[in-house]
Amino acid sequence: QNKHFALFNVWYLISKHHEQDAKRVIHSIKVGTALVLVSLLYLLDPLFEQVGENAMWAIMTVVVVYDFYAGATLSKGLLRGIGTILGGGLGCFTAILADKFGKTGNTIVVGNSVFIFGAVATYYRMIPSIKKRYDYGVMIFILTFNLVAVSGLRADKILELARERLTNIGMGFSVCIITSLLIFPMWASDELHRSTSSNFTKLASCIEECMEAYFNVSEKEGRKSINTSSCKAVLHSKSSDESLANFSRWEPWHGNFGFCYPWEKYLQIGEKLRELASIILSLQACIESPLQPSRTLQEPIKETCKNVGLSLGVTLRELGESIMKMRRGNEKVLVLPELQSTKLELTILSSSELQAFETVEALAVANFMFL
Amino acid sequence: QNKHFALFNVWYLISKHHEQDAKRVIHSIKVGTALVLVSLLYLLDPLFEQVGENAMWAIMTVVVVYDFYAGATLSKGLLRGIGTILGGGLGCFTAILADKFGKTGNTIVVGNSVFIFGAVATYYRMIPSIKKRYDYGVMIFILTFNLVAVSGLRADKILELARERLTNIGMGFSVCIITSLLIFPMWASDELHRSTSSNFTKLASCIEECMEAYFNVSEKEGRKSINTSSCKAVLHSKSSDESLANFSRWEPWHGNFGFCYPWEKYLQIGEKLRELASIILSLQACIESPLQPSRTLQEPIKETCKNVGLSLGVTLRELGESIMKMRRGNEKVLVLPELQSTKLELTILSSSELQAFETVEALAVANFMFL
Repeated sequence: QNKHFALFNVWYLISKHHEQDAKRVIHSIKVGTALVLVSLLYLLDPLFEQVGENAMWAIMTVVVVYDFYAGATLSKGLLRGIGTILGGGLGCFTAILADKFGKTGNTIVVGNSVFIFGAVATYYRMIPSIKKRYDYGVMIFILTFNLVAVSGLRADKILELARERLTNIGMGFSVCIITSLLIFPMWASDELHRSTSSNFTKLASCIEECMEAYFNVSEKEGRKSINTSSCKAVLHSKSSDESLANFSRWEPWHGNFGFCYPWEKYLQIGEKLRELASIILSLQACIESPLQPSRTLQEPIKETCKNVGLSLGVTLRELGESIMKMRRGNEKVLVLPELQSTKLELTILSSSELQAFETVEALAVANFMFL
Repeated sequence: QNKHFALFNVWYLISKHHEQDAKRVIHSIKVGTALVLVSLLYLLDPLFEQVGENAMWAIMTVVVVYDFYAGATLSKGLLRGIGTILGGGLGCFTAILADKFGKTGNTIVVGNSVFIFGAVATYYRMIPSIKKRYDYGVMIFILTFNLVAVSGLRADKILELARERLTNIGMGFSVCIITSLLIFPMWASDELHRSTSSNFTKLASCIEECMEAYFNVSEKEGRKSINTSSCKAVLHSKSSDESLANFSRWEPWHGNFGFCYPWEKYLQIGEKLRELASIILSLQACIESPLQPSRTLQEPIKETCKNVGLSLGVTLRELGESIMKMRRGNEKVLVLPELQSTKLELTILSSSELQAFETVEALAVANFMFL
């Protein structure tokens, strides 16, 4: 049965690897398609006569804005639009204002405003909360403001230029949106949902592996070594979770996710999971330490500990599954009293044991998650 | 003495906050200066007559490439240059090749090559090792290839255009480099060095706080609560450490850092520190758990545990300081035997105690770090 489990794991890894790869290939094809579509603005004569050299901006928009997740593409595109409009508007205003100061005054006014707006916007860009969400928009604001304010000295037809560029950015953006949302969309929200649920499973198998390694010591081989990589993966999931949640907020209604879906809950669950992962990691360190309690101390708590480990594993898997399928886990009502009674049992036993304490700790956190 | 320590901590936080803020202001001013310098290409008539509308590319380069750390600016600029040259070269080649197929054939050849190169480059962009280091360069490659291949149909003077744009990108880049490296440079390597060393200090004060909270329980107030935020900050430092190390590799020789400085060592030390942080975090969870050993069990090990905690703290601080000052820590020879003897003492005592086991664990990891 153990071998079967290992085989299943390998198969799972391969299929997951392939799935990941298939997604990458699909994404590459989508980007290629979007690029060809937007290049048609250049390649087809009737279209080119309409848009002219400004078609460059449409291509640039597609290359820069297109991202793996639909939410990322949407947020970048919208931020680019807003940044361009704000920067362009302010740049226009500055150029018109500066025009009233004569030749030299003009240069001075434009130079100063470029310095002030550039410095202030750069400062705001570095504030963590703005950096996390609006970094790209602020960058585009600086870029557009500069280009418009500076070239305002040369081109009189600044408004027309702005209109044409915006139209082109809009065209590029709509090509992005169409290929990104309509052809095999990759939702960041799906990914966040899936990864949160799979983190439960990962921790469950970590706990089971620990129990296995601790209590099944064979005389000749010694203790089995424990694979800590999946536990560490959960521990380091913070930054990817945060960016996924950030993109998810931008994604429109789809699948089971409505408007105003509570994405922060995922971050909170992730935080709890990371705490649990750190406890499991130090449990693993305890198990692998050369300092161990004697057999006689181990024996009486063996059964209870194993039970706790297994039911913890089952509960975590159950929770992960109920998150995946988005149903209320009714099973927890069945498991919770059992866990509580084992905890009590362990409390009595554990006053002289190290191992159990750790497990109870993990349990306390798991219990906390039920609330 | 305790109050003094708290005051010192607050002062440290404020001064650090100010320092951070001062750095941001300096960076903003540097960006503003670079923008004004590059805008002069437009604003001053003799310069504008030379570069023309292509000055746009210089401004764009400054806005996009300029980053907080010198290493990030350098790497982005160099990747941008390489990407532009490669993309431009291939685009030129494609345009010339496609020109031989007549009007319709031309469109088909260009469209297909845009699709193929776009899709393949996008696929490579998503491979983690390439994404981490060369993402920006590949994006610029796609962009330039597209622009050149597509517009090759229109402009006959494609080589001249490429030369002018490259010159402008070069001008923008040199403005970046001059302002970034010569005026108050912010080295990513300094930051990595500083943060690694300060992580040692953070963990040291975490351990000391734990010991304080565990053994100094007053009857009326109960246990003091422990501040876990700095420990968690260490735990989640992986992604920022990695990007800093990545930027550091691009930075030229400066200060105490020579060529081929072993930046991976910092990542390895960081990994060990994170393991230690996760152990301290679960130690904190143990201390705050409602399940506690009786006073009589606590009393005999109190002194030894405190000693271990304090000497661990001292050792960590010492190590952090010796990293900061880049000198070989001779003190460890003095501290190590002491730790080892206390560990032995604890081993004798700890067979019936939970708390100590944890500490020994932390010690084992700390010892491991000496090797």
